[in-house]
Amino acid sequence: MKGLFITIEGPDGAGKSSLVKRLNEAIQNETDRPLVMTREPGGSEIAEEIREIILNPLHTKMDARTEALLLAAGRRQHVVEKIRPALDRGDIVLCDRFVDSSIAYQGQARGIGIEEVKAINEFAIEGLRPDLTIYLDVEAHVGLERIKDKKLNRKQDRLELEAITFHEDVRKGYFKLIDLEPDRFTIIDASKDEDHVFQETWAVIKAKISDKN
Amino acid sequence: MKGLFITIEGPDGAGKSSLVKRLNEAIQNETDRPLVMTREPGGSEIAEEIREIILNPLHTKMDARTEALLLAAGRRQHVVEKIRPALDRGDIVLCDRFVDSSIAYQGQARGIGIEEVKAINEFAIEGLRPDLTIYLDVEAHVGLERIKDKKLNRKQDRLELEAITFHEDVRKGYFKLIDLEPDRFTIIDASKDEDHVFQETWAVIKAKISDKN
Repeated sequence: MKGLFITIEGPDGAGKSSLVKRLNEAIQNETDRPLVMTREPGGSEIAEEIREIILNPLHTKMDARTEALLLAAGRRQHVVEKIRPALDRGDIVLCDRFVDSSIAYQGQARGIGIEEVKAINEFAIEGLRPDLTIYLDVEAHVGLERIKDKKLNRKQDRLELEAITFHEDVRKGYFKLIDLEPDRFTIIDASKDEDHVFQETWAVIKAKISDKN
Repeated sequence: MKGLFITIEGPDGAGKSSLVKRLNEAIQNETDRPLVMTREPGGSEIAEEIREIILNPLHTKMDARTEALLLAAGRRQHVVEKIRPALDRGDIVLCDRFVDSSIAYQGQARGIGIEEVKAINEFAIEGLRPDLTIYLDVEAHVGLERIKDKKLNRKQDRLELEAITFHEDVRKGYFKLIDLEPDRFTIIDASKDEDHVFQETWAVIKAKISDKN
């Protein structure tokens, strides 16, 4: 694998989407290496169809293990069709959410268990690991307030409708992962303003890009 | 678990669908116990949506591991919404395909490995085992000929379009499973005519129903 695989993680409302857009621009200004920006769930045609099933607010009967398996299925297809080919070409891949999200959300917050969710994801990714994971840390109530403010005019998806305790558990899940692999993660305080969060993140990613050149 | 869980397995063209219809009638004539007839992939609303993605002939890029994870996801939902509640009520559940199909098709024939496919299915079913599995045995070329004859006027789905060697591998997969759990399986020679296959199968199921009463 010659490429550089960077993932952005964090609870809902941490500000991932707007950060990813700015990082995209910054990376393209910094280096001539091709950049693939992508996100999960989804990221390939089949994976997007799976995403639709996962996020459909009508699917109130969906079991947590079904959800975890669907996420792993979409992830597999995303890895095979998009992420691995890009890394094999030597590209930089910037991905909004990856395996860590499944472990924090389904493994910890939905209570399936971290090890069990890790195992089905290992089946999906066959050893692929991000070179760097940015964890945008924000307390649950702050994240949820931001979502409410932003989305007054559009429908919330099924996962965003979960209660605050669920989002606190998600955060706990992330911290367990960080304890297991501290070298892979960089924790960014995402309660600060967007500019600040971008500058801090960009400094870390820029250093990683230079490292790998 | 008070119910009776019976699964019907076999390669394509073994004659499962028409057999299952006759078994349905025979069971209802035999006993007052409620009967739930179902099939995989599918069997619940969410599982049927997942089925559509799996069988869509346009999805030529679908990876074998994606397919295995989607099947396990649909199975999980089917177990939670339909099979377990029925068995808890004491019903008889007759299911056309279950875990064994995934192990024979994806584990053996697609080469993922029997143990790996078993593991993701264990995540989905959490220990649920059929009380009886009828395996309709037919050589690959016989099964495929039957499919061709029957379906001249309709489109074949993606899995039916596989080559004969694939179907031979599926059969090999089933025989490995039978070696591992000989007590659960009854092998029926499905190259014989429909009436004969029905009579043999019905005798086994009838005995099992009497056993459990």
